[in-house]
Amino acid sequence: MSKGEFERIADYFAPLAAKFGGAYGLTDDAATIAPGTGRTLVVTTDTIVESVHFIGDETADLIARKLLRVSLSDVAAMGAVPRAYLLNIALRRELSDTWLERFVAGLRQDQEEYNIHLIGGDSVSTSGPIVLTATMFGEVEEGRALRRSGAGPGDGVFVSGTLGDGVLGLRAAKGDLSEAKQDTVAALADRYRLPRPRTALGPSLAGIATAAADVSDGLIADLGHIADASAVGARIEFERLPLSDEARQIVMDRSELLAMAATGGDDYELVFTAPEEKIATLLENWSGVSVTRIGTITADSSVRAVDAHGETLLFPRIGFRHA
Amino acid sequence: MSKGEFERIADYFAPLAAKFGGAYGLTDDAATIAPGTGRTLVVTTDTIVESVHFIGDETADLIARKLLRVSLSDVAAMGAVPRAYLLNIALRRELSDTWLERFVAGLRQDQEEYNIHLIGGDSVSTSGPIVLTATMFGEVEEGRALRRSGAGPGDGVFVSGTLGDGVLGLRAAKGDLSEAKQDTVAALADRYRLPRPRTALGPSLAGIATAAADVSDGLIADLGHIADASAVGARIEFERLPLSDEARQIVMDRSELLAMAATGGDDYELVFTAPEEKIATLLENWSGVSVTRIGTITADSSVRAVDAHGETLLFPRIGFRHA
Repeated sequence: MSKGEFERIADYFAPLAAKFGGAYGLTDDAATIAPGTGRTLVVTTDTIVESVHFIGDETADLIARKLLRVSLSDVAAMGAVPRAYLLNIALRRELSDTWLERFVAGLRQDQEEYNIHLIGGDSVSTSGPIVLTATMFGEVEEGRALRRSGAGPGDGVFVSGTLGDGVLGLRAAKGDLSEAKQDTVAALADRYRLPRPRTALGPSLAGIATAAADVSDGLIADLGHIADASAVGARIEFERLPLSDEARQIVMDRSELLAMAATGGDDYELVFTAPEEKIATLLENWSGVSVTRIGTITADSSVRAVDAHGETLLFPRIGFRHA
Repeated sequence: MSKGEFERIADYFAPLAAKFGGAYGLTDDAATIAPGTGRTLVVTTDTIVESVHFIGDETADLIARKLLRVSLSDVAAMGAVPRAYLLNIALRRELSDTWLERFVAGLRQDQEEYNIHLIGGDSVSTSGPIVLTATMFGEVEEGRALRRSGAGPGDGVFVSGTLGDGVLGLRAAKGDLSEAKQDTVAALADRYRLPRPRTALGPSLAGIATAAADVSDGLIADLGHIADASAVGARIEFERLPLSDEARQIVMDRSELLAMAATGGDDYELVFTAPEEKIATLLENWSGVSVTRIGTITADSSVRAVDAHGETLLFPRIGFRHA
């Protein structure tokens, strides 16, 4: 690492904090942040480790953007509007300034895309794999934060966007889908590398959805978290799960991959519950990401997926992960 | 690691979050936190790495407590009362549950000592050195957060407690002070391993001190940060620097170590500036840590220490570190 920490903060990170008053140009002992009147702060934090959470061939800008987007997805799942973040980086000494410059370029790009600002952090050296932590702040009207615990029997179960692209994208990125068309592989790999957190939909659901989570562990697992927290069950109609054109192409040839739409993680879509009519009203003037009803909350405690004939499909609940 | 992450959170970490409503038992996508009316949140974050920031022979409970206390010190330096924290841990898989239990016991002990609560975090595996991040939240009346930038010429320069114990304690912990009395070595090593963040003094200074910082990089460096941010200088009277009895014993025999009181880091005392009379009023009813006036803010831009004869002593400004 050719620059000292002080210089690195001034050169690379202070500019990312310039527009947020409470960041004090990253020169103070701490930042200050206060929600608007009648609002509350939402805070979530994620740590990723080299060769565990990123496979190694990503460019540094993509690593930075994925790091932010995973946390942005959690903020969206709480119904909050993102505002600011902290960044903690543990880097190997031999990592080049070029890597860091590209990492910072990725941060800057997504700061602009999501209207967020760096407000603090820490930068240290490690002899081991890179460890990166982002802590994201959002803001939501007091008492309106979406929780996992409010789902009630009869509520519809909805998801945003499409499912399965994350896990198929991981396979694509690893070269495991070599039989598929190049465009398809590229689109899925991109979807894995660069999640699209639903930062517009999430805040629109505050006060409307009865429960919400983001699909990071896989639909069955994340809906399971909602069911557990709400002490209810859910019945999912498998054929309603929304697939992207690319995912559809893949599973047409390899139907054993279809189950991944239900169990694969890393989709960063929102799964939420609400009375059908409330969502219908919301969607009347909605021009954002697609929303699909995929099932219904039930009074028992099991999360089941059924096929077109009403037969129950069995999925292991996999991939628990702390949000 | 014998327990899965989900189980680990439920068993070890959820109990640490039980008393903070907005932590939602660590089962949601994010936590919520709002300051009281007319108050603002202060937030600071620190990352420590095994064999860089802790020397390796510390017990896990001491590592946990030092991690929290370093951040508590930053919150105190902003004049804020600590409230809650996030914890991100990257651990090697082979680390035992015993280690983690002891780590959690340390967290619990300092949660009680400082009346703070865990509200979220992330737990991941790494093949490299342990990387630990604590993000601490405090609360202060709006507009009263202590900054580094308010010092004015003529203000007194004050420090809490004693200086140099941190760096002498590091030497003691490493076995470099073998000629000294055992009690002295033990007391200094303890001071290094377990900082005493000035969480009572800090909030008392809000609205009184014109600038403040904690002594983490060393007095000269941290006062330098205040001077830079305030566009002033400072004149320190070297013989006024408060030393502990233990530090005094060491430097009596090895006077070359005396300079460390001015340049050594890891003291986690507060250095602050204020009109003399305001501090005198504060101290009239003060029964906490000692406060010593060590110098005066000047209109030029240099930070100088002078000896009893008024001769300038030269110190390199060392040890920049992001707060």
